[in-house]
Amino acid sequence: MPSQKPLVAILAPGNMGAAIGGRLVDNGLEVRTSLAGRTEGSAERARTAGLTVTDDAGLAEADIFLSVVPPSQVTALAERMAPVLTASRRKPVFVEANAVSPDTARQVAALIAPTGCVFVDGGIVGGPPRQGYSPTLYLSGPDAARAAVLGDYGVRVGVMDGPVGAASALKMCYAGINKGLIAIGSAMILAAGRAGAADTLLEELARSQPNLLAKFSTALPDMFSKAHRWAPEMEEIAAFAGADPAAAQVYRGFAELYARLAEDSPAEAGEIAALAAFAAAANEEVSK
Amino acid sequence: MPSQKPLVAILAPGNMGAAIGGRLVDNGLEVRTSLAGRTEGSAERARTAGLTVTDDAGLAEADIFLSVVPPSQVTALAERMAPVLTASRRKPVFVEANAVSPDTARQVAALIAPTGCVFVDGGIVGGPPRQGYSPTLYLSGPDAARAAVLGDYGVRVGVMDGPVGAASALKMCYAGINKGLIAIGSAMILAAGRAGAADTLLEELARSQPNLLAKFSTALPDMFSKAHRWAPEMEEIAAFAGADPAAAQVYRGFAELYARLAEDSPAEAGEIAALAAFAAAANEEVSK
Repeated sequence: MPSQKPLVAILAPGNMGAAIGGRLVDNGLEVRTSLAGRTEGSAERARTAGLTVTDDAGLAEADIFLSVVPPSQVTALAERMAPVLTASRRKPVFVEANAVSPDTARQVAALIAPTGCVFVDGGIVGGPPRQGYSPTLYLSGPDAARAAVLGDYGVRVGVMDGPVGAASALKMCYAGINKGLIAIGSAMILAAGRAGAADTLLEELARSQPNLLAKFSTALPDMFSKAHRWAPEMEEIAAFAGADPAAAQVYRGFAELYARLAEDSPAEAGEIAALAAFAAAANEEVSK
Repeated sequence: MPSQKPLVAILAPGNMGAAIGGRLVDNGLEVRTSLAGRTEGSAERARTAGLTVTDDAGLAEADIFLSVVPPSQVTALAERMAPVLTASRRKPVFVEANAVSPDTARQVAALIAPTGCVFVDGGIVGGPPRQGYSPTLYLSGPDAARAAVLGDYGVRVGVMDGPVGAASALKMCYAGINKGLIAIGSAMILAAGRAGAADTLLEELARSQPNLLAKFSTALPDMFSKAHRWAPEMEEIAAFAGADPAAAQVYRGFAELYARLAEDSPAEAGEIAALAAFAAAANEEVSK
């Protein structure tokens, strides 16, 4: 018996959600979403990705429900879907695929448990799918394999041998290294600029740490529009690192830094402008 | 008129000081040091490097005096040398080459000013000289060029166009990026281990961040014996970053982390052992 194509639902059609949905559509799946409370940008992304727009009840008819939202909206989304999932006869596998701490993932699992749906912890490592590239959707928990079928439709899937929380922990650690590196780079480049040492820092990095300089040249500009999302993600990592008070302090500092950068206007001669100038010079140096 | 070879003094003959001294000796200079209050290890390093052992008065006869000590000993060394430099007729150029904040460098400048010696701010970026490699001794301040002659004797020198404090700032920023990266790597690898996600983190880094994994594979083991020195260096960076409270918080967190790792015994199944195991596995992965 050939396995049937799964019907997938994704909330919300943000940059990541719409791109993952689009990848699944391109590989032959029907992917539903809802635009309730979303902007015109979401509607445009959903259209471009070929998602089917429906209401929450329509989402609850899916085989797999993917929650892909910013950390601050994770619990609200589960609370919104819980009564609809409870009423649904299909009982989709609920995949919590967000950048949240294992504790938050377990809280969501507790919200979903009474609905009768199976819960899978997830974590998306990497950027949105693009030509020739897929991020990896890591899955963990006793029912992780129930969502692994997505791997047959163009999205890279990694099933972890661990409980609910393991995939979220992996996402926290990976983001903690990558976005932490961009945070310390930003902080030290800004400090060098205040001290009149930015040019020499760039030269020295070009000479002795070319890989890091290359990373900064692209990752800094990429961060500017995302800092407002990264700030709460750093708070999640601080909570995740709770058993290590030093690490928790570090990630609360990163959250504060990203929140400050998110407030900064690129149009003014502020911190974003200083980082952009460094990144542009770094890019020139790296391209030599 | 050919310029005369400068007579150099270095305190102390630690790993960096002895190696820089040895490099200058190998290139034809006489380099003096003192073993007052130092361990047998220092005596051994001084012998191996070919340094001339003398007393403080003998050091004060040098043309260039290099202060190369851990951050915690910087002010004490300047206080110890001040009366001897005051008494000296040679008045060596005093190069403060340590990993300290610009404020600390300016405090040392103030201690040296009454001696009549010229003060140069310095910062050593990179590890001790070894076959085919030299770190860069950055120099700043109005008299920076007075110590640049060292560049003719096998040590890479970078004269910065900035005041006293600029070279220290550069050192802070460079160390802040490099040692900060190792700190966030350590924190997240340990957190992944606690959550049972360390193996998958290693696989994912190997796939999507091979440069970072390669760095961790060598930089983590290299850090274990240095964490006790890096902790106060992170405190200096926190002080340096003072105008940026978020960054200061981050570097105080790194100081706490390194202080904790310095207390951990490699012989026990603790954090150092966990990081060593990750680094060994990373090294195997990277060598594939």
